[in-house]
Amino acid sequence: MTSAGLVRTIRIRSRRKTGGLGILTTALGDAGASIGEIQTVRIGHNYTLRDFHLLLDNDEHLKHVLDGIRDLRDSELVEVRETTRDVHLGGKVRTASRVDLSGLAVLAAATQPGVREIVQAIEDEPRMAEVFTTVQRTVAIVTDGSGLVGVGKVHPRAMLPVLEGKSAVLAQFAGLSSMRLALDVGSEDELIDAVSALAPSCGAVLIDSIAAPRGPRAAAKLADRLKIPVYHDDADSPAIVGLAAVINACRRAHLDLSSINVGQIGLGTAGGAIARLVMRHTGRPVLGDDVHPAAVSRHVSSGGHAASLDDIMAKCDVVVANTGHAGVIAPSKVREGQVIIALSEPRPEIEPYDAQLAGAAFAADGKAISTSAAVPGVLLGALAVKAALISDRMRLAAAVTLASCAPDGDLVPTPLDPGVHSSVASAVAVAAVKEGVALSGIVEERLAPAVFEEAIRDLRPLPLS
Amino acid sequence: MTSAGLVRTIRIRSRRKTGGLGILTTALGDAGASIGEIQTVRIGHNYTLRDFHLLLDNDEHLKHVLDGIRDLRDSELVEVRETTRDVHLGGKVRTASRVDLSGLAVLAAATQPGVREIVQAIEDEPRMAEVFTTVQRTVAIVTDGSGLVGVGKVHPRAMLPVLEGKSAVLAQFAGLSSMRLALDVGSEDELIDAVSALAPSCGAVLIDSIAAPRGPRAAAKLADRLKIPVYHDDADSPAIVGLAAVINACRRAHLDLSSINVGQIGLGTAGGAIARLVMRHTGRPVLGDDVHPAAVSRHVSSGGHAASLDDIMAKCDVVVANTGHAGVIAPSKVREGQVIIALSEPRPEIEPYDAQLAGAAFAADGKAISTSAAVPGVLLGALAVKAALISDRMRLAAAVTLASCAPDGDLVPTPLDPGVHSSVASAVAVAAVKEGVALSGIVEERLAPAVFEEAIRDLRPLPLS
Repeated sequence: MTSAGLVRTIRIRSRRKTGGLGILTTALGDAGASIGEIQTVRIGHNYTLRDFHLLLDNDEHLKHVLDGIRDLRDSELVEVRETTRDVHLGGKVRTASRVDLSGLAVLAAATQPGVREIVQAIEDEPRMAEVFTTVQRTVAIVTDGSGLVGVGKVHPRAMLPVLEGKSAVLAQFAGLSSMRLALDVGSEDELIDAVSALAPSCGAVLIDSIAAPRGPRAAAKLADRLKIPVYHDDADSPAIVGLAAVINACRRAHLDLSSINVGQIGLGTAGGAIARLVMRHTGRPVLGDDVHPAAVSRHVSSGGHAASLDDIMAKCDVVVANTGHAGVIAPSKVREGQVIIALSEPRPEIEPYDAQLAGAAFAADGKAISTSAAVPGVLLGALAVKAALISDRMRLAAAVTLASCAPDGDLVPTPLDPGVHSSVASAVAVAAVKEGVALSGIVEERLAPAVFEEAIRDLRPLPLS
Repeated sequence: MTSAGLVRTIRIRSRRKTGGLGILTTALGDAGASIGEIQTVRIGHNYTLRDFHLLLDNDEHLKHVLDGIRDLRDSELVEVRETTRDVHLGGKVRTASRVDLSGLAVLAAATQPGVREIVQAIEDEPRMAEVFTTVQRTVAIVTDGSGLVGVGKVHPRAMLPVLEGKSAVLAQFAGLSSMRLALDVGSEDELIDAVSALAPSCGAVLIDSIAAPRGPRAAAKLADRLKIPVYHDDADSPAIVGLAAVINACRRAHLDLSSINVGQIGLGTAGGAIARLVMRHTGRPVLGDDVHPAAVSRHVSSGGHAASLDDIMAKCDVVVANTGHAGVIAPSKVREGQVIIALSEPRPEIEPYDAQLAGAAFAADGKAISTSAAVPGVLLGALAVKAALISDRMRLAAAVTLASCAPDGDLVPTPLDPGVHSSVASAVAVAAVKEGVALSGIVEERLAPAVFEEAIRDLRPLPLS
């Protein structure tokens, strides 16, 4: 199991002097720390207290960074805070009542005897569940713990922090409820039966961290069986965000995506999904390479061409890499003017800086491309119009919208930008309605981003219920 | 399907005159309306606008009440509001993030890359899931929709409003999270497999509205298989609240519960559970009657005696009835000084007023005995000490505590009283620890009601995690 990805907050007390922060951050950088936010905690008479949020590889890396600080004359380490532990303590989500039960009248209406009238209304007309319960904004987030990206198989309970993270993202960015379900199931059939059994309780399913080929296969089977949106997070999120990144990278490098060659190195769940969605967008084959022949076959059967890494580097104007292996793209293979998006974490196939030094017109890694940007809006849009599935047209609409929401110079917007999710939701909802896979006859104004902003904010019914 | 239990708010504009409200409420009473809260909306120059929250049997009953108002000279119906529909619109619960994801540092800690450290901590030591996720305060509320009390079998989705009501109660009164799961399962085995599959995601299971004998049997099997608290709402809640009511009724009627005869008419899921818990409390057999011989056999095998309704009325000092049939206890059968608790809804086996007129020392129906008073505290207490089950000692502790929390003259406290749930949680937790079915070696002060009050309020970790 990789231990990459420590998040720590270190508090440092520095003597106040001009250029002091520069010396300190240079030392942190020399030790390889990736500095996130810096907060000034206090400015004293002749000292400054600051918190540095750091992304680190592992405990050894942390030790190395702390040693670097100890060598400084004018700065002193006050404290190392385990930010991650603090954030996780007691869990990251909770169930909240949407009604105030502190009066007898509301309690009687919400439970006995009032609730029976609502039960009867739904029993008579099942669609009313979408109006009188939270089902239409509830996502079942499902895993068996068999394939956490970059980690592998873990006990289902060890998946709960990941599921709760997604649950928190859906709640905060899309106003969606969720049930985080780490399932103890032995076989694919058991998995599908368990999810099917609970389907009446949710409006959509998010499949998370289930090892290939079970994950993609279960997602497809459940989508077919349940006739509700089934979002495969390990495939759909990279595909949507990856395509958005490709669109913007081409725009930046002045390449016309409809007439150039795109290559994909690594055709696993994420890489294969990116290549497929790029092909849907451009209508042209993507050149693909993978160490697993089965992955290459899948790529070819969805319209791609097989090629070697060297071929891809030599022929393609845009190269996307998801191999899981740091440094597999040698700088010597980079073509002048090439766009390279190297997505493996924690270290990319080639560092963006090195790629650009080698002549790339534009290069990026996965750190700037958060997959959390896609899922809240896609699910909110699909649920709002009661889509029967997540279609490629909906995925493409999400990708194009994400690309257009990115600030100038960025490949994709940050999920922290609140306008992103209502825009994606709107685009996805409109695409579903136009394609005929959702409620029909809806006036497009009712699916405008502003309408979704309201739904995200006030947590009352979705636009159409 | 019965249509009993309409909750409506009617707004009435009345001429201001002394005694006007008396005439109005008398008219409502004459029409058989059960008046809950009355809110004065506005006092005008010569009129008063008031909202009356009414409990009604059905639409016909409502019409009858409205006709009664039309006959009044000085009052005018302004509006009938469908309180129940308003309360249910868009659902009654939602998932909320417990962390503010609006900054990059927290987002990175809560999702990628920070979360992996927490995954690793749980993978290394499964107990850590109780510290770093919300699992230990999450209840899976489970039904197949086969046996809603007073209604019968409904489509699983039609059960969602009931489950969301319980979910809202657990959230508001105990700070507990829940997943409301209306399961689409054909057989008992499928039900048990589905719940077992999702067990890693929760700390306790609440079994709701599953028809007998499947419901009680599934509850027992799941408790055995999962080794976590399994609360059978249709049995445990009436038993705990029923015993509390019996204890207080005896206190009021100056009867010594340890030496008198108790009778139970109706030995279904609720009635059978009440009789069994009363016997555990008193150590004496309860005389029981039911139209189903199997129910009587179960009662006898748990230590009860079989008797006829007439026998029970003639011999018992305290009679509890749960038959589902209004009026089966004729006033002529009431013994002088008897205590009668007639729990069938919406109409009791004998109206308390009639029972007291016929000589009962004390009589009550189900309206004053809310089963919502038991479940939040019992589950909170059991989860806090990581109890492996819900034992009779824990049920008895809950019942005795509920009895002691009731205001003078009441049989059980209202669930709206916030102190009730922390007291019950404390008593249940202490009982579990003393019995050795939970964490051991805990100082009792750490399980005081005040500690639970904190846990209910601030929604951060449970006392012991």
